[in-house]
Amino acid sequence: MGLSTACAAEPLPRFGLVLHGGAGVIERQNMPPGREAEIRQQLNEALAAGYQVLAKGGPAIEAVAATINVLEDSPLFNAGRGAVLNAAGQCELDASIMNGNTLAAGAVAGLQHIKNPINLARDVMTKSSHVMLIGEGAEQFAQSLGYALVPNEYFQTEFRREQLKKIQAREKAAQTGVRHTSDYFDRQSRWGTVGCAALDQQGNLAAGTSTGGMANKKYGRVGDAPIIGAGNYANNATCALSATGDGEYFMRLNVAHDVSAQMEYRGVPLHTAAAASIAKVGKLGGTGGVVAIDRQGNIAMEFNSLGMYRAAHLAGQPAFVAIYRDEKIPENFSR
Amino acid sequence: MGLSTACAAEPLPRFGLVLHGGAGVIERQNMPPGREAEIRQQLNEALAAGYQVLAKGGPAIEAVAATINVLEDSPLFNAGRGAVLNAAGQCELDASIMNGNTLAAGAVAGLQHIKNPINLARDVMTKSSHVMLIGEGAEQFAQSLGYALVPNEYFQTEFRREQLKKIQAREKAAQTGVRHTSDYFDRQSRWGTVGCAALDQQGNLAAGTSTGGMANKKYGRVGDAPIIGAGNYANNATCALSATGDGEYFMRLNVAHDVSAQMEYRGVPLHTAAAASIAKVGKLGGTGGVVAIDRQGNIAMEFNSLGMYRAAHLAGQPAFVAIYRDEKIPENFSR
Repeated sequence: MGLSTACAAEPLPRFGLVLHGGAGVIERQNMPPGREAEIRQQLNEALAAGYQVLAKGGPAIEAVAATINVLEDSPLFNAGRGAVLNAAGQCELDASIMNGNTLAAGAVAGLQHIKNPINLARDVMTKSSHVMLIGEGAEQFAQSLGYALVPNEYFQTEFRREQLKKIQAREKAAQTGVRHTSDYFDRQSRWGTVGCAALDQQGNLAAGTSTGGMANKKYGRVGDAPIIGAGNYANNATCALSATGDGEYFMRLNVAHDVSAQMEYRGVPLHTAAAASIAKVGKLGGTGGVVAIDRQGNIAMEFNSLGMYRAAHLAGQPAFVAIYRDEKIPENFSR
Repeated sequence: MGLSTACAAEPLPRFGLVLHGGAGVIERQNMPPGREAEIRQQLNEALAAGYQVLAKGGPAIEAVAATINVLEDSPLFNAGRGAVLNAAGQCELDASIMNGNTLAAGAVAGLQHIKNPINLARDVMTKSSHVMLIGEGAEQFAQSLGYALVPNEYFQTEFRREQLKKIQAREKAAQTGVRHTSDYFDRQSRWGTVGCAALDQQGNLAAGTSTGGMANKKYGRVGDAPIIGAGNYANNATCALSATGDGEYFMRLNVAHDVSAQMEYRGVPLHTAAAASIAKVGKLGGTGGVVAIDRQGNIAMEFNSLGMYRAAHLAGQPAFVAIYRDEKIPENFSR
């Protein structure tokens, strides 16, 4: 008998996921009553949607999409329904997804009528020969695949309309003569990108990011979310990662690829790499964060903002959901 | 006397630039008569425009724009005038630029009426708080700065109209039922992005890339040229680089940032890093190349295609202009 019996505990399969619902000026004293519980519940739901896929042996890319769909459909986050409004009062959505096993990637930007932008990004990855499609062209591609277009009003919420009014009133009041700066913007209102990084039972990594971008944005501004290597990256050789924050800084530093590159070329662990990249963002003057997972199931939830909506669930461990900076991940969470 | 006299040769100021006008299936036997001389002359003109800026002590970012303007204005390259046509018979232009001293960056995509896209990318960098603007929004931003919009016909040449007809006829003939693949595309016709990387006398690096993208492109396809970290990157700590080739592969590998990251994290020289990144592109199935320069004035012109329009001029050395693979850069060119 001895060795052939299953008396020793089998090592747990290594799989799991980590997500974010945006980083920013998130503090206990500013959280509207009741909102915190709602947010935690939505983060839990999104986490469960992705975890179920992984627990059944499904692919990481599927888990990422399932998780992000929940966050896109929730009005609480700046992605899909509930996205911020641009200067013209419309929602304009960006998303990207990447498969760490093949380095295949898909991205879309400037969508106005696609209910779940992450799904279209995934179809760009798997059903086109391209990586990035933008604007009306991307929506034509969606229609060629049978997508129904939704009216832009589907995405718009009363909360975001009020937010835009406030921002625009303040912008008008604060006419300083300085052109095209974002100083007037409520920093809290600018963020809220959602994202997810997952490791499946086959050992494959994937990451996705979806956003409405920056409130009151003008001129077809695109941030880091749909930029492969800036707001999103996945490579089985290193990690899968999704970012949120001051998109322009994440673009200039190629944050998502920078974390991956540090693991590949410096040989440092995920957490060290993520902390170093976020430190670079801070040094350049930006704020935000990343969530990431590597092939061993180590995770990172690194941010330099006051808070970040975040959650993680690794096989054999309890789910972790957090909002504020002082909520620490359990020591033994990382495998 | 002795030490105080200027009898010893002063070390030459280290400045210079390197450019490309696209990589692809470029072979002697396929070059139309007379075309080669025209191309070499235009590459020389572009090189001289940038070199003049540097020789006068001007900034690298200025030299990059001056060089790229010549290539954009020439009908011979796939950028600005002479750009390839999209599936609808229109020119759709993308560009990006980056300042290695500040890591400031600007990018534009999907332009139809801006004569010199690299200039608008530069204005996005210096006159907006954003990194990337797309489509009509980007053109509205241009108008707010006083840009005149040019009719799309300005960009269109008879050569590109013929090319599109051929590609579309072949696409129609080759109805294989496979959707959205690029197998029908003439590989030679897909490329032609232009770009430049420069080092100025102050030791600052800059890089820029401008393109019409892929002939017969659909659905608002965006390639690597306007993606910071994919088709373009500049960092005084490492190098300035512009890429050309199968954009989708350069995006998935973040080629421009990958070269920079190898120098930063592996500590390898520019040429080693560039060769390793292009080898990755080849391994994934892509072709193309990069031109790059570092702060010591070392340059790289690395490609895995049959040819690449390329040129370089470093202070104190003769200008180098080449088209075919077998044209080797002089051994002593790299300082």
